[in-house]
Amino acid sequence: MKNIYQDDSLTLHTDLYQINMVETYWRDGRYKKRAVFELFFRKLPFGNGYAVFAGLEKVIQFIQGFRFSEDDLEYLKNEVGYQDDFLDYLKGLRFTGTIRCMKEGELVFGNEPILSVDAPLCEAQLVETALLNIINYQTLIATKASRIKQVLGKEIAMEFGTRRAQEMDAAIWGARASYLAGFEGTSNVRAGKLFQIPVSGTHAHSMVQAYKDEYTAFRKYAETHKDCVFLVDTYDTLKLGVPNAIKVAKEMGDSINFIGIRLDSGDLAYLSKEARKLLDEAGFKDAKIVASSDLDEYTILNLKAQGAKIDSWGIGTKLITAYDQAALGAVYKIVSIEGNDGKMEDTIKISSNPVKVTTPGIKKVYRIINNKNKHAEGDYIALEDEGLPEKKLRMFHPTHTYMNKVVTNFTAKELHEVIFSKGDLVYETPCLEESREYLKQNLCALWDEYKRTLNPEEYPVDLSQKCWDNKMRNIEEVKEKVAEMKAE
Amino acid sequence: MKNIYQDDSLTLHTDLYQINMVETYWRDGRYKKRAVFELFFRKLPFGNGYAVFAGLEKVIQFIQGFRFSEDDLEYLKNEVGYQDDFLDYLKGLRFTGTIRCMKEGELVFGNEPILSVDAPLCEAQLVETALLNIINYQTLIATKASRIKQVLGKEIAMEFGTRRAQEMDAAIWGARASYLAGFEGTSNVRAGKLFQIPVSGTHAHSMVQAYKDEYTAFRKYAETHKDCVFLVDTYDTLKLGVPNAIKVAKEMGDSINFIGIRLDSGDLAYLSKEARKLLDEAGFKDAKIVASSDLDEYTILNLKAQGAKIDSWGIGTKLITAYDQAALGAVYKIVSIEGNDGKMEDTIKISSNPVKVTTPGIKKVYRIINNKNKHAEGDYIALEDEGLPEKKLRMFHPTHTYMNKVVTNFTAKELHEVIFSKGDLVYETPCLEESREYLKQNLCALWDEYKRTLNPEEYPVDLSQKCWDNKMRNIEEVKEKVAEMKAE
Repeated sequence: MKNIYQDDSLTLHTDLYQINMVETYWRDGRYKKRAVFELFFRKLPFGNGYAVFAGLEKVIQFIQGFRFSEDDLEYLKNEVGYQDDFLDYLKGLRFTGTIRCMKEGELVFGNEPILSVDAPLCEAQLVETALLNIINYQTLIATKASRIKQVLGKEIAMEFGTRRAQEMDAAIWGARASYLAGFEGTSNVRAGKLFQIPVSGTHAHSMVQAYKDEYTAFRKYAETHKDCVFLVDTYDTLKLGVPNAIKVAKEMGDSINFIGIRLDSGDLAYLSKEARKLLDEAGFKDAKIVASSDLDEYTILNLKAQGAKIDSWGIGTKLITAYDQAALGAVYKIVSIEGNDGKMEDTIKISSNPVKVTTPGIKKVYRIINNKNKHAEGDYIALEDEGLPEKKLRMFHPTHTYMNKVVTNFTAKELHEVIFSKGDLVYETPCLEESREYLKQNLCALWDEYKRTLNPEEYPVDLSQKCWDNKMRNIEEVKEKVAEMKAE
Repeated sequence: MKNIYQDDSLTLHTDLYQINMVETYWRDGRYKKRAVFELFFRKLPFGNGYAVFAGLEKVIQFIQGFRFSEDDLEYLKNEVGYQDDFLDYLKGLRFTGTIRCMKEGELVFGNEPILSVDAPLCEAQLVETALLNIINYQTLIATKASRIKQVLGKEIAMEFGTRRAQEMDAAIWGARASYLAGFEGTSNVRAGKLFQIPVSGTHAHSMVQAYKDEYTAFRKYAETHKDCVFLVDTYDTLKLGVPNAIKVAKEMGDSINFIGIRLDSGDLAYLSKEARKLLDEAGFKDAKIVASSDLDEYTILNLKAQGAKIDSWGIGTKLITAYDQAALGAVYKIVSIEGNDGKMEDTIKISSNPVKVTTPGIKKVYRIINNKNKHAEGDYIALEDEGLPEKKLRMFHPTHTYMNKVVTNFTAKELHEVIFSKGDLVYETPCLEESREYLKQNLCALWDEYKRTLNPEEYPVDLSQKCWDNKMRNIEEVKEKVAEMKAE
């Protein structure tokens, strides 16, 4: 066995079963059959009222780089045992399909297709795992970050989680997702470099320890940096840390920009209030108090309720790992496939759990915007080839369908953009700032009832009548199969 | 602003404050002072009785590649605003220090140094974030996987989590950590390629849907693959899935290796028992039942208690994200630094939370092995320069010190290996199989009381008397500082 293969391609970043299925399709001559898969999650994370879609930039990178390297093929031959004819096919494989997807920063809800892949069966199958891996994580973190920002409002939030992130990719893409969702920056310099995100940070406890006392450490830092935030909790926050910060700030005067102090442990409510008094008494009324230490939307709400005097928040572990729900369960399901006669046929997966029954057919998602108040009334999922009613649209509560409303004066905004068309990238990727701004606008158009952290209202996501009828027809067909099998 | 910098280096995979501190040290002329940092966690994850160390291989890669690229430096200059003289210093910077670390597959407990960096202050500081990022995740997943294996015993466990992993690095390094910890393989082909891990997987629901019925799908798969595991829950597990699997297995006979079936949803206890009956009645007594669907050590225990007939387990989300505790809280603390007189001086960080007070001084960790029964009696942490008592060692309960025992006939095994010596890699990295075997041996030498999943006994991790006295002396010094400050 070759000792180590180069990590020169992400194309094998997939589950083995994808390649095994592709082998069957290829040997069976079905590999070029047109297939449509849709990617969606069923349930919003964190009990939130909405999710924020993120991940498209990396999906584009992945699709553009999709090709098996020589090392990939050598590995598949030598260690997994595929035969040469099949490997030759894989060698020439490129992504030639069409991908439709929501824009990053789009608000997304349960059971609506975020992305669809319309491609030759084999290609659509081979990209599944990576697409889920990327979108599940980045959407999860963007949603968590947006949720935290809902609680913070205009207060500054910085992503500080790299050391607790689940390996390196999570650190940088999580930093990006947080910024997209409204955070003001990150501590991760590589993320700053790659994604043009503002970076921030001053010093750690170790600097105080390296100089053996806070006064010397703060003074040395101030002599070498204009902007100063002093970390005051290495020994004793109120008795040593804050007084030393004030002492150095006074000594240095205008030669530094004394931004403030940082608290990283202890009772943040008590310490921030006491530190505020000390700073105010010393004449530093504009000095800010930065807090960090296992924060999330719950601790922040609690600290605010206790009257904590915190101006700026460093959020680490709980954000970058989405600690209270560490995975989004997005799935990628085939909804239509070309039959032997060349016509597209819809497909369904049944489950004993009703929420896991898939919705067959190629679909479009529309956001129904009320023309009067410019707010979203709900999303409407229709089959690709059906027209929308132009004047009156009945919107149903997603589970309790007897709750419904009729929308009349509306605009239906289609949420999918064409990203790749027959293999070519046709989407002009917005810069991260634009996606960030796009999310802000989307949140403005969402009623407050869907944005609150606790018990938000359930946003309507409806199926069109045709889409619903099609699903029921597919379920009936499966029931007939079960009956036939019994009869055999 | 340059539109995008190349992702050509991991050296900026750090928090900005590290670079800001380094600037202070460099301008202050202290950057070459020798400093020693230790990496440790305080609390075992998941309520487990031990953790499994993983991450060293990637740490070695990171340290070997440690140098700022041109793009790194250009970014730091243009976007962060560092000055040329400091950037020139960074440009020439390489890691020249010594790293001691436990071997991968070592058992590790709270508050003992896993890794120590003994290097010029600036270098030791700059590598902190990446080391924590790597070790926190990989150790967390190795521990979770080992915990699951404790429940499974000799049954087969496969890592199936890529689609729910927190981005791509987590997927592959998590697969590696799981294999290290005793899993039999992974579904991630890239992880298989890079780390020589067995890969497995057959087909998904989409293949059944693509062929519109199970019989055709299973048959086509069987015609193109020798080893067959049929996924039976696309429409109706017991009425359609299992009967179709049996039908195809009978038809194909010896031309395939009918390994068995896979259940991926529904009531796994009930379905597995009923499926077992159907397989047995059909004469396939050796056919295995593979189960997957949000499994972890708790659901597995529960399924076993219900008499589920499952032979092989595919573990995804709950393992790859360490869902019930998605972060390990390892920290990296300075314990000693060269003073102005060139002598090493120990340092401490105090906290209002007693468990967060660091233990100063350069330390070694010994595992105390009872020579009679070859089992570990506990770990013993001593200062680097002190000798160990050769005949009698008193081991204390870590928090209730009145509980203690005297060990007489023992071997003290030092747990740290020298990995880098003055910048040079001197450690001969074992292959993954060796580390996996090493963990197995370590687990054999651990009493069962520490290995159980629920309420394990607390493994003793003691400080030597000298180490304890040194800590108390450092605490006293800080108290004196507080008193002085008050008096001012």
